[in-house]
Amino acid sequence: MNDAHPGCYLGVLGGMGPMAGAAFALRLSALTPADRDQDHIPALLLNDPRVPDRTAATRGGEDPLPYLLRGIRFLNDSGARLIAIPCNTAHLWYDAMVKASRAPVLHIIESVVEDLRRRGIHSGKIGLMGTEATLRLGLYQRHLERHGYECVVPSEEEQVAYCTKSILAVKANRLSEAFEPAAACVRLLASRGAVAVALGCTELPLAIPHDRRGEFDVPMTDSIDALALAVIQRYQADQDVAARAA
Amino acid sequence: MNDAHPGCYLGVLGGMGPMAGAAFALRLSALTPADRDQDHIPALLLNDPRVPDRTAATRGGEDPLPYLLRGIRFLNDSGARLIAIPCNTAHLWYDAMVKASRAPVLHIIESVVEDLRRRGIHSGKIGLMGTEATLRLGLYQRHLERHGYECVVPSEEEQVAYCTKSILAVKANRLSEAFEPAAACVRLLASRGAVAVALGCTELPLAIPHDRRGEFDVPMTDSIDALALAVIQRYQADQDVAARAA
Repeated sequence: MNDAHPGCYLGVLGGMGPMAGAAFALRLSALTPADRDQDHIPALLLNDPRVPDRTAATRGGEDPLPYLLRGIRFLNDSGARLIAIPCNTAHLWYDAMVKASRAPVLHIIESVVEDLRRRGIHSGKIGLMGTEATLRLGLYQRHLERHGYECVVPSEEEQVAYCTKSILAVKANRLSEAFEPAAACVRLLASRGAVAVALGCTELPLAIPHDRRGEFDVPMTDSIDALALAVIQRYQADQDVAARAA
Repeated sequence: MNDAHPGCYLGVLGGMGPMAGAAFALRLSALTPADRDQDHIPALLLNDPRVPDRTAATRGGEDPLPYLLRGIRFLNDSGARLIAIPCNTAHLWYDAMVKASRAPVLHIIESVVEDLRRRGIHSGKIGLMGTEATLRLGLYQRHLERHGYECVVPSEEEQVAYCTKSILAVKANRLSEAFEPAAACVRLLASRGAVAVALGCTELPLAIPHDRRGEFDVPMTDSIDALALAVIQRYQADQDVAARAA
């Protein structure tokens, strides 16, 4: 029994929502080059949905930060050497979580930027879909503009009618109702010149499943897959460093 | 912040394989009656794929038990009040895991029996699919026969050609190659009189996805969904007890 690293390499602060957290773990496994169980990345998923609503908090609701920090500390204490948080809105509290963590914490929006580049998209207008708080507080805009992209954002009314409607349907397990509003938003953003659309809330990749993305004229960057690919890249780099040191 | 129960209700000993562990978390979320994040079951998924191969162990390979017990202890120490193990073959070590656990541990095969009853199947021949070790060591047979069912089991050659082939394809992320051998086994067992077929290895529900099960003349009981439904039932009963005590 190898006791050198009993903890899992990856700690996942999930539960926001729980289906998105589980879908992240599934996509992490599906995207990892592996021939057998033992080739996959050891991961610990804290899928605790009791974290207060992140968007409501930005309007005066209960503060999620104590819950987020408790999760970060638990993952660190369990031996995680890297942390991923499959919830875009939670990244409004990113700096405080980084400060509380010994392990590095990936930033989901930086992972989306890497994913755009991986797809050969280095500039132009990116359509943004996400929660009301993510869009209103400019979480994506800040990162994308710093990297030379422009942003196409739905109006407040469009965000509610399309994104929020779809996100809430996923959280309530009504996946079939989640597709159409999300799809309408993708088409709207494409009609306004977006060269790609960011599914910038981890419920949205569940609303528009992979096998239906070919129905659209515009590529989508999926914040669940982007974060999973960032984990895999980091894991492989760390394995290479360890192999060279051995 | 509610600190009365900081740990997660459910501890999941996953990683065997990692995609099955994640799929279990996803199905748990999908099958839970919920209107919002906070209605879902708090869960901690230890998705550590370093556990030595369970089937190989029954042929003299490395013993997985120390890894299984480490996982059980970790989930207990993290506050889990119920434990689920989405790997059928690991249940060959069930008694030792129960002994090491303060929290009750659901038995996946008892959950499959409950699922058969839920579907109105109370007797008759059940077709068994699973790993070589699960079938050879009679893990399902013992439980099903005790509950009054008969078992239809593939021959050793059929088990390898159909079940093992499909299971290994899932573990290596080649899902499209996993369907046909598994499907052939379902048809074979139905032709031998099975009134239902047990997908008795947690890779098999991934090989034959939900949206393709209508292609078969025989119903399938899915060990991932059966275990998730058992968790949900237990959680609701525990919530009711807590509500009455309050």
